[in-house]
Amino acid sequence: MYTHEYQKRVRYGETDQMGYVYYGNYAQYYEIGRVEMLRSLGMTYKSFESEMGIMMPVVSLEARYLRPAKYDDLLTLRTSLRQLPEGLSITFQTEILNEEGKVINAGTVRLCFVDIQSGKTVPPPEALIERLRPHFLKDEE
Amino acid sequence: MYTHEYQKRVRYGETDQMGYVYYGNYAQYYEIGRVEMLRSLGMTYKSFESEMGIMMPVVSLEARYLRPAKYDDLLTLRTSLRQLPEGLSITFQTEILNEEGKVINAGTVRLCFVDIQSGKTVPPPEALIERLRPHFLKDEE
Amino acid sequence: MYTHEYQKRVRYGETDQMGYVYYGNYAQYYEIGRVEMLRSLGMTYKSFESEMGIMMPVVSLEARYLRPAKYDDLLTLRTSLRQLPEGLSITFQTEILNEEGKVINAGTVRLCFVDIQSGKTVPPPEALIERLRPHFLKDEE
Amino acid sequence: MYTHEYQKRVRYGETDQMGYVYYGNYAQYYEIGRVEMLRSLGMTYKSFESEMGIMMPVVSLEARYLRPAKYDDLLTLRTSLRQLPEGLSITFQTEILNEEGKVINAGTVRLCFVDIQSGKTVPPPEALIERLRPHFLKDEE
Repeated sequence: MYTHEYQKRVRYGETDQMGYVYYGNYAQYYEIGRVEMLRSLGMTYKSFESEMGIMMPVVSLEARYLRPAKYDDLLTLRTSLRQLPEGLSITFQTEILNEEGKVINAGTVRLCFVDIQSGKTVPPPEALIERLRPHFLKDEE
Repeated sequence: MYTHEYQKRVRYGETDQMGYVYYGNYAQYYEIGRVEMLRSLGMTYKSFESEMGIMMPVVSLEARYLRPAKYDDLLTLRTSLRQLPEGLSITFQTEILNEEGKVINAGTVRLCFVDIQSGKTVPPPEALIERLRPHFLKDEE
Repeated sequence: MYTHEYQKRVRYGETDQMGYVYYGNYAQYYEIGRVEMLRSLGMTYKSFESEMGIMMPVVSLEARYLRPAKYDDLLTLRTSLRQLPEGLSITFQTEILNEEGKVINAGTVRLCFVDIQSGKTVPPPEALIERLRPHFLKDEE
Repeated sequence: MYTHEYQKRVRYGETDQMGYVYYGNYAQYYEIGRVEMLRSLGMTYKSFESEMGIMMPVVSLEARYLRPAKYDDLLTLRTSLRQLPEGLSITFQTEILNEEGKVINAGTVRLCFVDIQSGKTVPPPEALIERLRPHFLKDEE
């Protein structure tokens, strides 16, 4: 398992009139979590598109809303890969914690890899697997 | 089962640089679908908050992304209640169809009912059940 | 002058915890207004990009917030072109009216025309001028 | 003059199919800039609402789009107050710089102060003026 944490402050435009973060905005929080996890591995999602010619559309999303997030909260996005990508997709888990360390939200996002030129689904890029492998070998020791 | 259809055009700000609707924007599409379903029953979600003192936070969301939605597409939001709300929550299913009638996305959103004053979870308002019941009786005939 | 009206309902995700539409969301309302104005002329902005190879980035935006817009309001987007595009840009004015017919917001958006292939600014497409001209000739009569 | 800088990374959901940040998303960037400027002064906008009972709706917005912002850019939000708030409003200027230090966008946002209980416009809170005054005295020396 590889886990990365990143902090995100709740912005005014992300709240709704209930006084909480609008439920649709969590998808963007998950995006931030997984992109920053990739950066922590020394890669950028930007380079997937611009250098490798691969884009990663989302296949499925599951979100559970346990407690509300509120304006100006400094949230922790704890993003994990529980296993190396298998087959043609990759699944990120993101737990969102509030300032008291309580999990307020949990999301699971599955994405696939698509060759931008051909539009075809492809396996995960080898560069990604290489960056991830050491972290999963460690787990097995 | 009660089903309602509503049309929504994809706006430029809803696309991302992949050229498709950003995956986080579907939650708002589901919101539009369920709010317009309530309106078709002669109720407004607005009146839930302003007249009944009840708000409906989202408990969980599941979304499957089958095909991309593109800029300026006129989507059909087909929102269904498969059963009367049981217990303390209500679950809406939304299928999103493109102009060729193909299902491009499917979402399931579960919401609960919270008394705004007390902050406590409450059963669904009787007014809602009354509006829905005739549609479910019909199904059983 | 050419003016077009289009109705837009305020969605929950567009409000903020002040209970009003978030000030950043009006830009999308102006976008809806100008795109639907083009459609009323028999053109789509989509075809500008996909058929004519022209995109229209925004050059400047001015917005005045006169009264708040609230959840579920059915707003009228009244979009006007006060003159034919001159030089290399086009300026749309949008007044937003609430259900009582009061102007709650006024926006001015100036856009230019860019050839997608070359990245260069170009004059407005002749097809657009042709569609607009009759409306401006009428004004002069 | 008081100036504060804050960094903001462009997220995928903020781009549109032109491949740039959607023009409507800059308003949120300006919000981040001014809220973080207040924090740099030892105040939070959150406390304006929750402790002082004052909210700050936007009165007007002006934005100039000079160069596009692109996905994953690490932008600098340089927010300035050019003078102490006079009368009943306050005006923030935000310049947005890209990683090469070029100004890509400039925004001016004027907000007023409203007593949440009465709904009436009020002068800026004394606590804000006190925090700002030393920075403006310095300028005059």
